[in-house]
Amino acid sequence: MKLSILKEHLNESISHVSKAITSRTPIPILSGIKFDADEEGVRLTASDADITIQSFIPAEKDGVQVIRLEQAGSVVLPAKFFGEIIKKLPSHEIEIEIRPPFHATIRSGGSEVQMVGLDPEEYPQLPLIEEKKVVSVPSDLLKTMIRQTSYAVSTSETTPILTGVLCSLDENGLKFISCDRHRLAQRETPLAAGPDQFFRGVVISGKTLNELSKVLPDENSFTDIVVSDNQVLFRMDNLLFYSRLLEGTYPDTSKLIPLQFQTEIVVSGKLLTEAIDRAYLLSREEKTNIVKLVMNEDRTLEISSSSSELGKVTETIPVEQLTGNLLKISFNSKYMLEALRVIDSEGVRLSFTGAMSPIIIEPLGETKVLQLILPYRTTN
Amino acid sequence: MKLSILKEHLNESISHVSKAITSRTPIPILSGIKFDADEEGVRLTASDADITIQSFIPAEKDGVQVIRLEQAGSVVLPAKFFGEIIKKLPSHEIEIEIRPPFHATIRSGGSEVQMVGLDPEEYPQLPLIEEKKVVSVPSDLLKTMIRQTSYAVSTSETTPILTGVLCSLDENGLKFISCDRHRLAQRETPLAAGPDQFFRGVVISGKTLNELSKVLPDENSFTDIVVSDNQVLFRMDNLLFYSRLLEGTYPDTSKLIPLQFQTEIVVSGKLLTEAIDRAYLLSREEKTNIVKLVMNEDRTLEISSSSSELGKVTETIPVEQLTGNLLKISFNSKYMLEALRVIDSEGVRLSFTGAMSPIIIEPLGETKVLQLILPYRTTN
Repeated sequence: MKLSILKEHLNESISHVSKAITSRTPIPILSGIKFDADEEGVRLTASDADITIQSFIPAEKDGVQVIRLEQAGSVVLPAKFFGEIIKKLPSHEIEIEIRPPFHATIRSGGSEVQMVGLDPEEYPQLPLIEEKKVVSVPSDLLKTMIRQTSYAVSTSETTPILTGVLCSLDENGLKFISCDRHRLAQRETPLAAGPDQFFRGVVISGKTLNELSKVLPDENSFTDIVVSDNQVLFRMDNLLFYSRLLEGTYPDTSKLIPLQFQTEIVVSGKLLTEAIDRAYLLSREEKTNIVKLVMNEDRTLEISSSSSELGKVTETIPVEQLTGNLLKISFNSKYMLEALRVIDSEGVRLSFTGAMSPIIIEPLGETKVLQLILPYRTTN
Repeated sequence: MKLSILKEHLNESISHVSKAITSRTPIPILSGIKFDADEEGVRLTASDADITIQSFIPAEKDGVQVIRLEQAGSVVLPAKFFGEIIKKLPSHEIEIEIRPPFHATIRSGGSEVQMVGLDPEEYPQLPLIEEKKVVSVPSDLLKTMIRQTSYAVSTSETTPILTGVLCSLDENGLKFISCDRHRLAQRETPLAAGPDQFFRGVVISGKTLNELSKVLPDENSFTDIVVSDNQVLFRMDNLLFYSRLLEGTYPDTSKLIPLQFQTEIVVSGKLLTEAIDRAYLLSREEKTNIVKLVMNEDRTLEISSSSSELGKVTETIPVEQLTGNLLKISFNSKYMLEALRVIDSEGVRLSFTGAMSPIIIEPLGETKVLQLILPYRTTN
């Protein structure tokens, strides 16, 4: 194999596939990046056995010749060292030559790097995915859906299925749900699809979705979601992101969400977030994060926390709308802050069914995001 | 005590004095910030017993009324919580009221914070410093001198004196020296001073100087250095920075610096730094950081490192000037990089007295900076 390639394109590609590299892998070849070159371009592949990412660098892009190929070929190069040194090479152009068996020489300006490669034949194949259930989603919408749900997955490995986000597609559209023992996040979006494309019970690791989020393009583009029995593939332009699905049955969360409410209030999302943030500062010192919310007759909301050692924070913000009974309720302010921060809305609706029942946080408007947190059972 | 104060000024002042706060102090009152208010303004003081910082907020600044005082007084407030909550308060103006014994109420917009304070009488006094040896230095020059020396102090507590920077002032000017067992950094600057102001053997903790560096103003201003027997005071506009001196005698480092050289070369600082940085990447994987430098007949410098597992990096850069014999030498590339990075010069002179003797790194030009690193004794 012998070629020259523009540094900038190689760098971007390495940074994409490197998201699949873990520092400690039991399979030595997975500490490398697979490098395949032919007339079409260069393919980089990295994997940690659960996630596999493949990035394609076309030989020509926007009229610019990115790669000049002298001889096609393949090799596996050590991911960390390869990635770091490419970033720091002095010239825009990088020459890569592989000589038998898998000995790489990389030249750029006054630098020459010898690198011991591995046999590409030993590298695992890409997961095989049947292209049956394919749906196309705007990439930035997918990114938002991930942000609004993945933060609430469980971090405890005692119930592995809860470390994932439950994804489904039916006539109502695409739906993501995450949930640990204290809260739930749910996002739906309408999406035109036929019964052939519908899927349910697909659970993708929250961590994996966060890694996907980092490589999802911002600009106007679509990402294909391809679902098979035990794998999902996110297909972007020149980038394939495979992930193994979590095994097991996700619990039915629909019963957790109250259908009728005793009290509903509408407040400014910004004022509420900032007020809870200040109360959180003090509650954090007590290591409880407990913050108390009291609705007053004068249409104000009092948010407070106290610490026997440090003192007390009391916040007052106006209530824009109130329906139902005045209520007192306590909750984990960290969970409330995280829920408020993923709601992109000026106005926020909080719904309650009593001091011991779940609190529902939703944006005003059309976007179907629902955040739920359980209250604290406090004595006062 | 009762006053209102502009948030921005209070914030800046808290962030300055907080540099002296350590999270774990054996003296409970030192976890607080002392707050003194009178007609002139507000003084904040924080200390970790070694460092003491006092910041003054004048009642009026540039025609703006920063503080409106209703009643003078003092209190000690919990540093961490006070600093965090002030930063997040909703309004530009903050009202602070202390009621007996030391109960603080802080109001801003819709926020009210109660804070349990401590008795200011129990707070240690400021160090007493005799104003005998005072010298005034441009603040940005002082910052540069700290940057060029403090990085090379020893991090090992086995020889505590080497964790400090040795400072002296005589007819040649102000001189900073730092040194661990592998390298030395030295910076001198001419400074008009009389014998009454001269001092020597003053050793200030490298960590302390780095903290000082963070509060030194960038703009054109001077900092007074006031030296006494066991304390040094850095006096800026509205900011006093006291530090205890390290006890002990600093070793005589003058004999470490060779007076005659066998070889001298001049190279581009940028090219040399980048080349060593790439060689360092590989040498770091071997955990030795060893990089080899070879001078060639064709007036090039070859810089290389190799790893039995990963491969080899070879860099070639032009030598601009060469005097003396061609030489091969090995050294710790991390130390070399740190030395090169604090030299603000396009051209760099490297001086050698042999493969086993110290390497001297200096900028071209007038600035008196000298960096010294010991070579590795390698077999090839």
